[in-house]
Amino acid sequence: MNLEIKQDILLENLNYVIKGVSSKNIIPILNCLKFELNNEGLYITSTDNEITIKTFIEKSNIEKINSLGEIVVSGKYIYEIIRKLPNVTIKIEEIIDNKINISTENSSFNLNCNDINEYPEIDLNDSKNPIIISKKVFKNLIKQTSFACSTQENRPEFTGINIKLNKNILECTATDSYRLAKKYIELDQDYNENINIIIPNKNVIELERMLSDNDENLEMHIFSNKIIFKFDNIIMMIRLINGNYPDTSKLIPDKFNISVSVDLKNFFSAIDRASLFTSEYDKNTIKLELEKNIINISSNIPEIGHVEEKVMIDDNYKDLFKLAFSSKYMLDALKTFESEKIILNFNGEEKPIIIKNINDDGLVQLILPVKTY
Amino acid sequence: MNLEIKQDILLENLNYVIKGVSSKNIIPILNCLKFELNNEGLYITSTDNEITIKTFIEKSNIEKINSLGEIVVSGKYIYEIIRKLPNVTIKIEEIIDNKINISTENSSFNLNCNDINEYPEIDLNDSKNPIIISKKVFKNLIKQTSFACSTQENRPEFTGINIKLNKNILECTATDSYRLAKKYIELDQDYNENINIIIPNKNVIELERMLSDNDENLEMHIFSNKIIFKFDNIIMMIRLINGNYPDTSKLIPDKFNISVSVDLKNFFSAIDRASLFTSEYDKNTIKLELEKNIINISSNIPEIGHVEEKVMIDDNYKDLFKLAFSSKYMLDALKTFESEKIILNFNGEEKPIIIKNINDDGLVQLILPVKTY
Repeated sequence: MNLEIKQDILLENLNYVIKGVSSKNIIPILNCLKFELNNEGLYITSTDNEITIKTFIEKSNIEKINSLGEIVVSGKYIYEIIRKLPNVTIKIEEIIDNKINISTENSSFNLNCNDINEYPEIDLNDSKNPIIISKKVFKNLIKQTSFACSTQENRPEFTGINIKLNKNILECTATDSYRLAKKYIELDQDYNENINIIIPNKNVIELERMLSDNDENLEMHIFSNKIIFKFDNIIMMIRLINGNYPDTSKLIPDKFNISVSVDLKNFFSAIDRASLFTSEYDKNTIKLELEKNIINISSNIPEIGHVEEKVMIDDNYKDLFKLAFSSKYMLDALKTFESEKIILNFNGEEKPIIIKNINDDGLVQLILPVKTY
Repeated sequence: MNLEIKQDILLENLNYVIKGVSSKNIIPILNCLKFELNNEGLYITSTDNEITIKTFIEKSNIEKINSLGEIVVSGKYIYEIIRKLPNVTIKIEEIIDNKINISTENSSFNLNCNDINEYPEIDLNDSKNPIIISKKVFKNLIKQTSFACSTQENRPEFTGINIKLNKNILECTATDSYRLAKKYIELDQDYNENINIIIPNKNVIELERMLSDNDENLEMHIFSNKIIFKFDNIIMMIRLINGNYPDTSKLIPDKFNISVSVDLKNFFSAIDRASLFTSEYDKNTIKLELEKNIINISSNIPEIGHVEEKVMIDDNYKDLFKLAFSSKYMLDALKTFESEKIILNFNGEEKPIIIKNINDDGLVQLILPVKTY
């Protein structure tokens, strides 16, 4: 392998693949990047077996190709070298003794290579019927649900996002069993397959960060044990979580005893301030009281003090209704909304709180109340 | 105490004093702020006995004063409350049971107060002859020297910055015994007192961050065991480190066997890249070779690889000169320079490296070489 390439083009691609390299992996080959230079261009791959990221730099974006070939080299070191070089043309060539030399006019790095045969073979072939979705829409789907995943490994399926497809309805669900986030969208076309998979949250977050916020499309190729995302010049494979995701469709009622609309910013700020007088020890519990056209929010830590917040609502509710919930969960849920007003729905002080947009856009946030007696 | 004040004015002042509150202090009263409302305005004080910060809000900047008084209250909580309130007029009033109430139209906080009599009395009176210096110049003095202080407590005097005053020359020195940073400036007037004190680095860094980067003046009031800084509406007291700072004036030679001028950016980038192939284990050592009009910089980690960097110099030096040094110390030192070119001065491979600005501006950086044999 022997080529010349502009620093900015190479770095842009390394910025993606480096996310698939964990410097803590005890299998040294998984800390490496694989470079494959063929007649089409340069492919760069990283994998930790759970995720694989592969980028492609077209021949036309490479200054000069002197000889084709493949190498496997420490991801961390080649990334830092390219990052610290100025934006000029960089020569990369395989030299004797299983090394590469990376050079510019005044800099010359020799870097030891690893054995190409040790690098895992990863099947990144397409499925027959990829699902097509805009990057922006998919990014939002993940941001609006992923925070509700569990970080506890005792229920592995809760550490992932459940993705379901039925005809043209794509639905994402995440829950840690105390709260649940759900969002569905309509795709441009119907799909025949019924899909019901669980993607590990920590890996799908990496994908979400890599996606630019535009209307270009993303392809999802779904298999029994993995999902492959294709966008821009990037392929990302994520292994699925084994297991059956619980049926969450019954958890969200469609009728409510109380539904009140409230200004999102005011409600968020009030909860945020009330959360000052809560602690993780008491599950960050705050109290909500609804009477007439006022929501009263309160919390206290006896040694420190007490807070009361008032939020005016548009509706007028005659009875007194009370419940308590985790301020942290409520703030997390409220952050997923962008509208000026939201609807808070209640069915009783021990029944889930359901939060929706005023114009239903498929987003539902559920929070279980905290019993305070 | 009972007053009404705009949120932004109060928060601006709390942003300063909160820096004097450590949430980890085991003496609860030192986690508090003292508020004193008198006929002049509102004073707010924080102290951990090592530093004291006191700000003053003039009467004219307070919306309404209903009654004067003093309170002592948890710094962390009142700071977070004010920070999270909107920018409106806030009422603060002492209520029964040794509490204060902080309120706006929709928010009401009760916060328990601490005993005012337990709060330490701190003497913040002026000295007779304060030293006057521009904030911008003082900020630079600290930034150009403070990084060279030691973090090891076995030589307490090295954890501080040495400040010396002789007539109109103010000199700051910091060293950890492997490197030394020194900067002197000329003040606008002569002072009669000879001053030679050591200020704890960790506290002077807090001061440096609080100073805005402008030409307004700072007053330094120096006492035997403390220094008081006065600027804007702020008083900051820092306890001095006891001990005699070693005489460092002999350490910096004024004659050199080799002096070469080099482009700062190119030299910095070359060292930065070479530092990739060093480790803390080997003191981040890199090698420098000087021959003709080229500086060669190299380093290697045998298992990983090897780097060579070339930097062209303006001078032409006929013999080969070699030495090795810590890339980390060199990068720290180079960051203090702003000129396009700097001068590297050498007296031998075991003698200190002395770095100066091409137009001497009183800044000197010294780095001891590393022996590699």
